[in-house]
Amino acid sequence: MYADRRARLRDRCAAAGSPAALVSRPANVRYLAGGSPPGAVLLVGAGDDVLLCPRAPTGDPADGRPDESLRTAVLPASGGDPAVAAVDVARKAGADALAVEEHHLTVARHRAMGSVAPRLRLADLGGAVEQLRIVKDEDEITCLRIAAEIADQALGELLESILVGRTERHLALELERRLVDHGADGAAFPTSVATGPNAGLAAHRPTDRRVEEGDFLSVCLGANYRGYRCEIGRTFVIGTTPADWQIELYDLVFAAQRAGREALSPGTEFREVDRAARQLLDAAGHGGALAPRLGHGVGLEIDEDPQLAPASMGKLDACVPVTVEPGVHLPGRGGVRIDDTLVVRQEADGGPELLTITTKELLAL
Amino acid sequence: MYADRRARLRDRCAAAGSPAALVSRPANVRYLAGGSPPGAVLLVGAGDDVLLCPRAPTGDPADGRPDESLRTAVLPASGGDPAVAAVDVARKAGADALAVEEHHLTVARHRAMGSVAPRLRLADLGGAVEQLRIVKDEDEITCLRIAAEIADQALGELLESILVGRTERHLALELERRLVDHGADGAAFPTSVATGPNAGLAAHRPTDRRVEEGDFLSVCLGANYRGYRCEIGRTFVIGTTPADWQIELYDLVFAAQRAGREALSPGTEFREVDRAARQLLDAAGHGGALAPRLGHGVGLEIDEDPQLAPASMGKLDACVPVTVEPGVHLPGRGGVRIDDTLVVRQEADGGPELLTITTKELLAL
Repeated sequence: MYADRRARLRDRCAAAGSPAALVSRPANVRYLAGGSPPGAVLLVGAGDDVLLCPRAPTGDPADGRPDESLRTAVLPASGGDPAVAAVDVARKAGADALAVEEHHLTVARHRAMGSVAPRLRLADLGGAVEQLRIVKDEDEITCLRIAAEIADQALGELLESILVGRTERHLALELERRLVDHGADGAAFPTSVATGPNAGLAAHRPTDRRVEEGDFLSVCLGANYRGYRCEIGRTFVIGTTPADWQIELYDLVFAAQRAGREALSPGTEFREVDRAARQLLDAAGHGGALAPRLGHGVGLEIDEDPQLAPASMGKLDACVPVTVEPGVHLPGRGGVRIDDTLVVRQEADGGPELLTITTKELLAL
Repeated sequence: MYADRRARLRDRCAAAGSPAALVSRPANVRYLAGGSPPGAVLLVGAGDDVLLCPRAPTGDPADGRPDESLRTAVLPASGGDPAVAAVDVARKAGADALAVEEHHLTVARHRAMGSVAPRLRLADLGGAVEQLRIVKDEDEITCLRIAAEIADQALGELLESILVGRTERHLALELERRLVDHGADGAAFPTSVATGPNAGLAAHRPTDRRVEEGDFLSVCLGANYRGYRCEIGRTFVIGTTPADWQIELYDLVFAAQRAGREALSPGTEFREVDRAARQLLDAAGHGGALAPRLGHGVGLEIDEDPQLAPASMGKLDACVPVTVEPGVHLPGRGGVRIDDTLVVRQEADGGPELLTITTKELLAL
């Protein structure tokens, strides 16, 4: 499988005139090599493919397990930058050009690479590996499905506990502990818990504010399972009965989120999915304060292509996992966010597959 | 204070021929501006200094609070990269050269910056801000002292709890929760808990291994307090009586760590501090497996200059906080690491100031 992915990359590079490529962005290394020990870089298309590591891989599961059919070279203790060592390997293998990830390498590192082999032309690989990563295979989707199950379990347990009086920070830490309890390799991203006036803010970082009766409580979390990251966000009301404005706002965001989910199908333009949800929120007068996008791809990173945004060009394919996460925040009062991870599927296969299945009813806790 | 720091940077830049500089590395932005909202960059020396932010700062304490005397410019929602916008500001202010952080900017970003103002020369600021950050003022040391107190408290509480049967992962999560309980803004770095054969490994990532009787247990953690990060590492024995080999190994690492601490004084070469500890471990036959350095600076990042390593050039100054963290790991058996954060002080001021004061006796828990 990893060898197939590397073959596809070599084909792309050869077509672009640089048969050899150096991959340095960790998620890209992991995608092509099966594992990404800290600092490792992958050289493909210059002799045998080789994973250059600054030190011996520790076998840490969080790094993944490098493909056994792939050659691994461990640099000596004072071996310097593996990317520089890789340039030297490519030169000795007779490559005259090497495509590198200019969106990941720093200027200083790129210069050091250029200086060890002045006659080797450094070209730009651009986002070639990121493009390969957009459509997932069923093994990848299985990892995402398990990650989503873990997040659902952690969230479900939180809902059964007493919430009033506890701080955002503590609830976030407890959720992260529960993710690990249920088998996650860690949180997919920093867990967000937002109460009262903070509720509904995107990527709110937890504070010492305590949950109070009558609050909106919005939570966004995700699990990392074998490197694959999902995302779920829900908003609840604390106390016995939601206020009218809370029910109204919730119903609106829910309708927008449903419209976004229902727009997910192979061939639909990214911006059409965004528009399906955005126009409902816009019509209700919340257009000015909306986030610049409705959702994004997920996989080995929590924020990947595609972007579901008004100016985003391109169309969805089957087997692309994305988030659909509209939100409205009313300054001083709080707000609502609802966030799911789904996989785009053909109509004949049942349409979009919802990975995060926690209820989206407005629960009063 | 922040204005003084920026004035010192402007002086340095002017002396190097580029009166204007663009700072993009987040810890450097925070050092000079008081805060670093996500994605913000700081332009100094081209007209008024200005902090360019991709969106309005949220006031999140984890980002710090930007200096009120500093101009802040928030880019429009689709404003693109603040570093590119900053180039345009510098050009309009009449700058003919701009020093940038080539060790932080990617090649792609640097190119985008160059293309908006082809006649503005982009020079390299190098590690100029990192150099300014090495010697700390007393306010910074106060933050580090509080961070160390928090870490000591979290570790102390863990030692009072039952450890046998609990996993490395759970102990690590509990330590991180306790750090936040005691007022940390978060963990300074991922907490490491290592038991049995894992004990003594540097930066070991916690696994599902459970603590057993007779294990070495090594723990490394730190608190982030107002952006400042400290580090403490201790090794314990689980059960009633340590084995002879455990006592022997512990005494050796302890002696090496003490030698390193005692070598800390203004004017001492970095490599001399490393050598003081390394020669003891070397003489005992552990030289081959030692980490490449004894310790490093700490501050707004957990790993800063100076490097206490054999090939490191330079001498210690007063008011430089560093870690001293030797360790020995015996494959299959485990090992010992002892790690403190100290501030280099003049002899007349009492010599090195130990910030992390948890006992270094070999405790049997």
